Amino acid sequence: MNDVTLKLKPARRERLADVLYGQILEQITSGELVEGAKLPSEARICRDFQVSRPVVREALMRLQADGLVVSRQGIGTFVKSRPSSKLTDFAASADIASYLRAFEPRLALEAESAALAAMRRTKAQLIQIGEALAALETAFSRGESGWEEDFAFHLAVARAAGNELFPRLLEELRDILSGSMRMALGLTRHGSDDRRRRVLEEHRKIFAAISSQNADLARLYMRHHLTESRARITGSYGDL
Amino acid sequence: MNDVTLKLKPARRERLADVLYGQILEQITSGELVEGAKLPSEARICRDFQVSRPVVREALMRLQADGLVVSRQGIGTFVKSRPSSKLTDFAASADIASYLRAFEPRLALEAESAALAAMRRTKAQLIQIGEALAALETAFSRGESGWEEDFAFHLAVARAAGNELFPRLLEELRDILSGSMRMALGLTRHGSDDRRRRVLEEHRKIFAAISSQNADLARLYMRHHLTESRARITGSYGDL
Amino acid sequence: MNDVTLKLKPARRERLADVLYGQILEQITSGELVEGAKLPSEARICRDFQVSRPVVREALMRLQADGLVVSRQGIGTFVKSRPSSKLTDFAASADIASYLRAFEPRLALEAESAALAAMRRTKAQLIQIGEALAALETAFSRGESGWEEDFAFHLAVARAAGNELFPRLLEELRDILSGSMRMALGLTRHGSDDRRRRVLEEHRKIFAAISSQNADLARLYMRHHLTESRARITGSYGDL
Amino acid sequence: MNDVTLKLKPARRERLADVLYGQILEQITSGELVEGAKLPSEARICRDFQVSRPVVREALMRLQADGLVVSRQGIGTFVKSRPSSKLTDFAASADIASYLRAFEPRLALEAESAALAAMRRTKAQLIQIGEALAALETAFSRGESGWEEDFAFHLAVARAAGNELFPRLLEELRDILSGSMRMALGLTRHGSDDRRRRVLEEHRKIFAAISSQNADLARLYMRHHLTESRARITGSYGDL
Repeated sequence: MNDVTLKLKPARRERLADVLYGQILEQITSGELVEGAKLPSEARICRDFQVSRPVVREALMRLQADGLVVSRQGIGTFVKSRPSSKLTDFAASADIASYLRAFEPRLALEAESAALAAMRRTKAQLIQIGEALAALETAFSRGESGWEEDFAFHLAVARAAGNELFPRLLEELRDILSGSMRMALGLTRHGSDDRRRRVLEEHRKIFAAISSQNADLARLYMRHHLTESRARITGSYGDL
Repeated sequence: MNDVTLKLKPARRERLADVLYGQILEQITSGELVEGAKLPSEARICRDFQVSRPVVREALMRLQADGLVVSRQGIGTFVKSRPSSKLTDFAASADIASYLRAFEPRLALEAESAALAAMRRTKAQLIQIGEALAALETAFSRGESGWEEDFAFHLAVARAAGNELFPRLLEELRDILSGSMRMALGLTRHGSDDRRRRVLEEHRKIFAAISSQNADLARLYMRHHLTESRARITGSYGDL
Repeated sequence: MNDVTLKLKPARRERLADVLYGQILEQITSGELVEGAKLPSEARICRDFQVSRPVVREALMRLQADGLVVSRQGIGTFVKSRPSSKLTDFAASADIASYLRAFEPRLALEAESAALAAMRRTKAQLIQIGEALAALETAFSRGESGWEEDFAFHLAVARAAGNELFPRLLEELRDILSGSMRMALGLTRHGSDDRRRRVLEEHRKIFAAISSQNADLARLYMRHHLTESRARITGSYGDL
Repeated sequence: MNDVTLKLKPARRERLADVLYGQILEQITSGELVEGAKLPSEARICRDFQVSRPVVREALMRLQADGLVVSRQGIGTFVKSRPSSKLTDFAASADIASYLRAFEPRLALEAESAALAAMRRTKAQLIQIGEALAALETAFSRGESGWEEDFAFHLAVARAAGNELFPRLLEELRDILSGSMRMALGLTRHGSDDRRRRVLEEHRKIFAAISSQNADLARLYMRHHLTESRARITGSYGDL
């Protein structure tokens, strides 16, 4: 483990922590910061990046929550795992933190709407979910990223919840979700066959649970799918 | 139990099920439909209200979910409980269904943001939540409904979740929430002392759980508070 | 805040952490350790109580989880709240930690069995739950602690889950639960009218949710009831 | 779809519904009852099997919950999917229902103990979980069923929850769990490589979540693992 210098460009934007997160992430994905490397101290990052301590802590906390670095009390912060070097092909590094953050409200909202959809979906709504699933499969088989089909699937589930506020809130997140899905599925398109198979299987299980009107199962599978989607982006599981 | 005629004004609006819900609700709160009274058949309501069967089913399903009517397989639908006659003083009857519906995404989003707030709140954020709580107590002691203070409290919790999407989604619901809170707290203002005491206590427990950084407890208390708020509106617990 | 000496009797029993917990608890409930008092250091407690560091940490962690003390990083551990002085009238101080611990598996098992009971209970099973509830009300009105009626209520819910393993596991915990309930309801019997009213109301809501076949509501109310029961014992809410 | 006769041996045992469940299951796994076949009416099964209506309903309800049959209101009950014909090689047909039932309390207890283990595990406890995982991998690579290693893994997680009641309750279920695990892993041993890979991966993720002290993740992965384990037995996913 060797202490390294972060090459940081001073920034004066609102989302400073996101930008800092992105710059550190970029150096991890590029391999400039190798696994096991020790990051500079908080004080040092503050000075180099010309931001206050809370901004640095925020960025480091998120990097740790995303499994990219690990902090050891009183010793320092170390690079833990390296996401796919292609990550920054699909999203600007300053946006990645915000894309990952979108999973938090999604987990809450979509797990609930999946459960409600299992209880309330009409036949017509179930068919729409099934059609979105088929479209996603087709997109994958054509080598497309399928992010629009993915969004359509999740929106169809939200609509089937029988409460127009669920699709409305998802639409409110459309911009950030489309960026997030483009990034996630861009990586998947360039990943292994196994990875694509998993993504489809996760969607199929959500559909099956809603179809068989099992609310607890639908909640669990949606929650699991979103958790795995996020982990695939940060590379917590290698290529999976 | 006697079969009754619903006095229905034919409607041609988008949210037909809400309007139908509101008209039936109005007749229950006014006492025209007494407890135990049997509602007309679905077919009859379709004809009188001039809407399709799915609209009627939707309205009846919501009335049942709200504990106002109960369906007995093959027998019919009966009035179960009567909300406060003051309910329609605080909201247009056609809006009540939509106000109640807002609790579903709130339960999902706010339970999660309360848990995250317990894990991530800064001291400054905790103080803001505490100030909103104090303002709500003051409003109650002055005989005000306190709905703005209530909204401020929930927004402060969402902000403390450390993810700007939580407050953003709550702001997106501001219109509907302000109507919903005005209705809920309007009823509480005219309710018993015990009712006001409970509302404050529920908020205090959320604050205490976030303060002591107990995520599971914060999630439970937020979930419980919103569930009870909804039940107080539909009158499931008498004046409580 | 003054540093104090803990009067500790060296112990050589298996559940050393429980015994230590009990001795500290006793000094808090008796008032020997007042609110705000600083506990001796971990090293000091190790020496005085003649146990290893992990035992001390375990006991302090539980005291903190129970809301009785609070640790401030690098400063020390302080007495936070004082449970009813009657607590040790109803249970041996060395048993209290184990009684409180019973709430953890109960929360998991009973929240699930309440949800399943809402989905599967037969009419006969619902009647049994209702009878147990009525018996609890009668016991309270007679000034009895009602712990046997309380156990019967929870067992009736477990039986209604339609899976004989739920009542079997509750029976396995019968000894520890009867001690726990005797302590909890002993305190309630000597508490305020408001406290008894709350205990009954919590049971009534569980019954109502199971009766109306609302699984999510039954899960929430059971979880809330057990959380509040535990908090009433440790005195987190004063006399409530 | 053709109506069929169930060859039923009248039974006079306590767990009548389990025995009935087992006999119908046997005829589905053996192929006597093909997919799409309509089961006899409840009344007919009562007569042939010489049991009361509640017993028949109980058995059919469980078969439906397990995804083996599907009931269509007012039409009848139909065979939906066929589990592996090897299922009855690994367990007596009358025991299968009870083995499946064990997943319900396990889901509740083990999801909670996994979450607590993530928060409280000591280093030594984490090592024990890791060793149990390694032993399971070794058993799989040797072509053994590995059920003892599986039980050891789950027990190690329960022990790491820092509350001795969790392992005690798991021990209380040891008999039923060992039968259940023998059946599940017996099927897996004769299943595809992919199936074994998944079983291991599910355990690895639980370990990783506990290792990284992420309680929500540990709870989700344990819940997901047990749900998938159950689905693999009933064959809801083909050979997976």
